[in-house]
Amino acid sequence: MDSKQHIINKSEEAKDIFLPHLSADAVIFGFDQNELKVLLLKMNYRKQWLLPGGYVRKDEDLDEAIVRILKDRVGVTGVYLQDFGVFGKKNRSELYFQDFDETLFHKQRFVSVGYYALYNPDKVSLIPDEFSETCEWIYLSKLPEIELAMDHREIIEKALLTLRETISHKPIGYNLLPEKFTLSELQKLYEIILGKELNRGNFYRKMKNLGILTKLDERRKGGAHKAPDLYSFDEKNYLQALENGLNNW
Amino acid sequence: MDSKQHIINKSEEAKDIFLPHLSADAVIFGFDQNELKVLLLKMNYRKQWLLPGGYVRKDEDLDEAIVRILKDRVGVTGVYLQDFGVFGKKNRSELYFQDFDETLFHKQRFVSVGYYALYNPDKVSLIPDEFSETCEWIYLSKLPEIELAMDHREIIEKALLTLRETISHKPIGYNLLPEKFTLSELQKLYEIILGKELNRGNFYRKMKNLGILTKLDERRKGGAHKAPDLYSFDEKNYLQALENGLNNW
Repeated sequence: MDSKQHIINKSEEAKDIFLPHLSADAVIFGFDQNELKVLLLKMNYRKQWLLPGGYVRKDEDLDEAIVRILKDRVGVTGVYLQDFGVFGKKNRSELYFQDFDETLFHKQRFVSVGYYALYNPDKVSLIPDEFSETCEWIYLSKLPEIELAMDHREIIEKALLTLRETISHKPIGYNLLPEKFTLSELQKLYEIILGKELNRGNFYRKMKNLGILTKLDERRKGGAHKAPDLYSFDEKNYLQALENGLNNW
Repeated sequence: MDSKQHIINKSEEAKDIFLPHLSADAVIFGFDQNELKVLLLKMNYRKQWLLPGGYVRKDEDLDEAIVRILKDRVGVTGVYLQDFGVFGKKNRSELYFQDFDETLFHKQRFVSVGYYALYNPDKVSLIPDEFSETCEWIYLSKLPEIELAMDHREIIEKALLTLRETISHKPIGYNLLPEKFTLSELQKLYEIILGKELNRGNFYRKMKNLGILTKLDERRKGGAHKAPDLYSFDEKNYLQALENGLNNW
């Protein structure tokens, strides 16, 4: 069966199961090699890259829908999820299914709820779905080079801005870093999200003064330099500090 | 015509005009008497209070819908608007129209997009719509005493949390205060949004160091104490400072 016929068959089933006009898309962030990356799919039908997304069942809450969508599309479970925006331009997806007629479920106008997900490498493993040609991590620095479908580039940019604006209030470091990390890795993550360099001494002092880090009796081995100390988050203190904001007024 | 029949008549018209299953609700914040307040409606049909909300036309963007809804329902135009969350529990509104049958447009499941609006007393005037019994500003301190419909209390709480978490990045002070204000009024606004008292000396120093305030050649008259200096925001510097965050890392 070709991929176009497959979509048409899915369309009839979709009309019974899902709410019309409403979709959800996830920007799944990961962090490694001192860079942020996002998880993208490429469908068989078109060669553009897509965020993992889907529709909302008539019998489920919106929060349940996004959890199911992540599991079904990319096998991601147990991640921190937060909605960050709604994308509702009336013509935002009109060109994507232009080869199909108007009866196609997928072709109607969709208002999409954007969620960001923080992928903690200790906790999850990827299992891409069977409908996509490929599922890959793309580093943010490579995004300008690829073609993204519909308004998905705008959705990623809004997600990144949301991380920047809420890094003092949401457990972003906790969910993007492995359980054990160096202060240098923590600083690099903050610098990437904030989009600027930070003074090392100030950053270390501030982080230590917050009382949210536990220094471990271990060091990171294998680097060219002196093996740096490893830290983990003190979860209780961290969550408490986030309520006030790490950057206190 | 009684209010129930009026809703039934509106329902048939609504099916032609609006997208099903999607609504938008606005939490309109105002600031006076050193308190935050929200604008609420009470319909004829039921005695609970409601956020001003409505549906999305098939031929308009979501962003256009919320502007139209605010104008139609409460006569509010030209305010700062920001979406902050989506409310999608499957049973969130099932009891509200329980006296009607299932064909009523208003009775279907709605996923609602929450917007907050910042009401600047210099810029706008209220014109409540004709369908509501009353439209009133309710101070946050009085909210526990009133009955709110559906999940509208949860929507207000999430809006307030969003103000708290993004006060360093969004022009919240600028849009809630009158053009000319005292440092004491600015501090009070921050204290209410942040939910805690701030040290006066630190707050004044920090605000002045940001370079976002212009000291005016005027004073606030009429108080019991020495007339305090008036300030206004330097819009250009303020917007620039918000990009970095007023609370710099």
